[in-house]
Amino acid sequence: MANLLTMNDLSARDIEWILDRAESIQKDKKKFRESKPILVTNLFFEPSTRTRFSFETAEKRLGFQVLNFTSETSSTTKGETLYDTVRTLEEIGTDIAVIRHKDDHYFDQLIHNNIKLNIVNAGDGSGHHPTQSLLDLLTIRQEFILFQGLTVAIIGDLRHSRVARSDAEVLTSLGCRVVFSGPKEWHNPELPGDYMPMDEAVRIADVVMMLRIQHERHQHTLDLTKEEYHQAYGLTLKRSEMMKKGSIIMHPAPVNRGVEIADELVESENSRIFKQMHNGVAIRMAVLEWALETERGEMNRGELIKEW
Amino acid sequence: MANLLTMNDLSARDIEWILDRAESIQKDKKKFRESKPILVTNLFFEPSTRTRFSFETAEKRLGFQVLNFTSETSSTTKGETLYDTVRTLEEIGTDIAVIRHKDDHYFDQLIHNNIKLNIVNAGDGSGHHPTQSLLDLLTIRQEFILFQGLTVAIIGDLRHSRVARSDAEVLTSLGCRVVFSGPKEWHNPELPGDYMPMDEAVRIADVVMMLRIQHERHQHTLDLTKEEYHQAYGLTLKRSEMMKKGSIIMHPAPVNRGVEIADELVESENSRIFKQMHNGVAIRMAVLEWALETERGEMNRGELIKEW
Amino acid sequence: MANLLTMNDLSARDIEWILDRAESIQKDKKKFRESKPILVTNLFFEPSTRTRFSFETAEKRLGFQVLNFTSETSSTTKGETLYDTVRTLEEIGTDIAVIRHKDDHYFDQLIHNNIKLNIVNAGDGSGHHPTQSLLDLLTIRQEFILFQGLTVAIIGDLRHSRVARSDAEVLTSLGCRVVFSGPKEWHNPELPGDYMPMDEAVRIADVVMMLRIQHERHQHTLDLTKEEYHQAYGLTLKRSEMMKKGSIIMHPAPVNRGVEIADELVESENSRIFKQMHNGVAIRMAVLEWALETERGEMNRGELIKEW
Repeated sequence: MANLLTMNDLSARDIEWILDRAESIQKDKKKFRESKPILVTNLFFEPSTRTRFSFETAEKRLGFQVLNFTSETSSTTKGETLYDTVRTLEEIGTDIAVIRHKDDHYFDQLIHNNIKLNIVNAGDGSGHHPTQSLLDLLTIRQEFILFQGLTVAIIGDLRHSRVARSDAEVLTSLGCRVVFSGPKEWHNPELPGDYMPMDEAVRIADVVMMLRIQHERHQHTLDLTKEEYHQAYGLTLKRSEMMKKGSIIMHPAPVNRGVEIADELVESENSRIFKQMHNGVAIRMAVLEWALETERGEMNRGELIKEW
Repeated sequence: MANLLTMNDLSARDIEWILDRAESIQKDKKKFRESKPILVTNLFFEPSTRTRFSFETAEKRLGFQVLNFTSETSSTTKGETLYDTVRTLEEIGTDIAVIRHKDDHYFDQLIHNNIKLNIVNAGDGSGHHPTQSLLDLLTIRQEFILFQGLTVAIIGDLRHSRVARSDAEVLTSLGCRVVFSGPKEWHNPELPGDYMPMDEAVRIADVVMMLRIQHERHQHTLDLTKEEYHQAYGLTLKRSEMMKKGSIIMHPAPVNRGVEIADELVESENSRIFKQMHNGVAIRMAVLEWALETERGEMNRGELIKEW
Repeated sequence: MANLLTMNDLSARDIEWILDRAESIQKDKKKFRESKPILVTNLFFEPSTRTRFSFETAEKRLGFQVLNFTSETSSTTKGETLYDTVRTLEEIGTDIAVIRHKDDHYFDQLIHNNIKLNIVNAGDGSGHHPTQSLLDLLTIRQEFILFQGLTVAIIGDLRHSRVARSDAEVLTSLGCRVVFSGPKEWHNPELPGDYMPMDEAVRIADVVMMLRIQHERHQHTLDLTKEEYHQAYGLTLKRSEMMKKGSIIMHPAPVNRGVEIADELVESENSRIFKQMHNGVAIRMAVLEWALETERGEMNRGELIKEW
């Protein structure tokens, strides 16, 4: 079983293998061919457009058979546990389950001897989202070639973002300096790195990574209008002019235009927001291959990430 | 980019190409083969059975890879704009987006230099529904061979029907006489052609095209029971006996049986209602091919419809 | 047309053909190849995970093209009849419709000269669920080889279960003794066989088949807590120790753990609950082949089940 639940499941060599493979997929359009048909089930317990479609496209490009499960049309209304649902999918023949769930660490209940299928985490609560981290890494590597010495500013809703944590950890491991900025109420003591005022973070960063405001996860809202938030913590046009030459803008999307980022910047010359989405398909193809090849013992995985 | 947003995007030659192609698909069951896999995304923001399944079948018959987006399970709940959703689908690799949306002319915001994928309109609000018009044309042509000189009566909910407008315009262009009938409250001054009493319309028509009452788009309902409506504006058994020899009945479906049309007439000998549905698949296969071939510049398109 | 609506549509020879075919599918992984692409539409008007995914996997393993219809995203909101929906699917090119519906005998309105496609019943109200019966049969036959002389105890919500009735009839026909146990309020006079106390039923059975409590079909609930129900009518750990050597536990799932059955028994050594799910895919592949081969007259069907 080769699960990808958090970035901690990957060794440095795994990450390199995945990023290289994703780029070779983009260049050659070559695809991997299994001798037997692979069945993938996408289990999305939360609404999603880009992550689900990006995975589904990756699966179809690889020639896999695909089942799509959304919580609206399923037996979870009959009170079945997640464990029983996943065991069922395995008995039906699922080789890989791609799962998004609103609970942090939903996968803890699935790490169980009886479950043999591969699990790829497509987002757990405010926890992890490893394929998003990997596509962010690919986007940064395509721009700067080396991670060592880069400054990445992660800005905004640090408390509820599953991207912030995964990205901060892996970027730090790869030699980046990671800094944070955002409303005090949303600071997150678990994140490694320095907090600083918005203008300073934007000024020193090679990568300005804006986070989406996770309205759906907030219990209390800030006492700010959208426009006030934008002026205080958003990437305004004026702030974008302070950015270093050669620096880039990233955002995991969907974007709240005019809130986290000025409307005009979303597709500006130094924005890589749509390139991130583009990279997502190749990354997910590479991750699905990685899961299958690791399972078959065909990968030399090196040490896991914690030992980087 | 070759979009099909309204019938005005098609030249007379385009229409002829599509109708001929649809018929040759029906005869030979031949399908077009792309060298690279084509990815189509069906974006349905309104419920639909026949249009969505007809498109999806067409796409699968053509060997395309298909993503199905319905508004219930998507990030539109996170407030993303339609433009950003479509740009995302493009970055993911979508070649053609088939879109149904409740807003008239939703596609105006998508006619944008940054969007390169092909858009096929599967219905916008009370506006257009070009593939429905094309399958109506095919059904009429299969019956009468020539359009010139035919009388087509379009009857019922003229104000809210996206079929009425598209069909009336293109049929008039092709040399048909188009007449209308229905409750005064639903008359639509934008439609070209004569209004007349129900019985007269039925008597002179070669094609009696009944429209569905668009309950879901009405803000005020007529002050009539279903039975009263049926007697006043429906195709009753008695009225059907006034129809000319050789004339046919059409309806875009879903049918409100016993309201727009008597139950017994839906599958009567001169009804073409289910044949319309049958023709829908071949028309949509032909339209998808048209979009791809036009994009590659392999079509000689002639003049657009306004110059017919 | 070869419909599978209830087990009464199958002759003894049909059942044998299906069970044998399912096993040969499991062994050889061979799949049937149609010369023309087969289009299957899954029409699920009730939520379902395992049945729908089991069918969809079977269809994809067979290389069929698949449309998935769920009531949430369809025109049934526009008031279309089931007959018209199915006729539409037929015109679109559907060869087989797999249907689940909350109404008992929904299919009566579809047994109509105008409908030519094959219908496979995936569950009607509290009525029938023939593919569930067939996978139960396969599971029992794989265990005991012969049906003759076995005692099968069906236990629990006998009134609302579509499994109880189908299974009881066919098992009796095949030479099993079927006994029942459960709350008096849920006894069902239509079921053939003896009622007995829980402990006795468990003690004499070769197969202890627990039923799911169909909360969603109950108008009045029993005056019992979950724990009280479990003690009175559930398969507790203590009761499981009374079971005969070599006997097995079955359950159609989803399981209410700790209610119908003790948590620890779900994956115990003599449980075949997940094997039932595993067998479901091969059974459904065999049923889909059966429908197509019967339609072409390539099957020698023997006498229908009532004459067994």
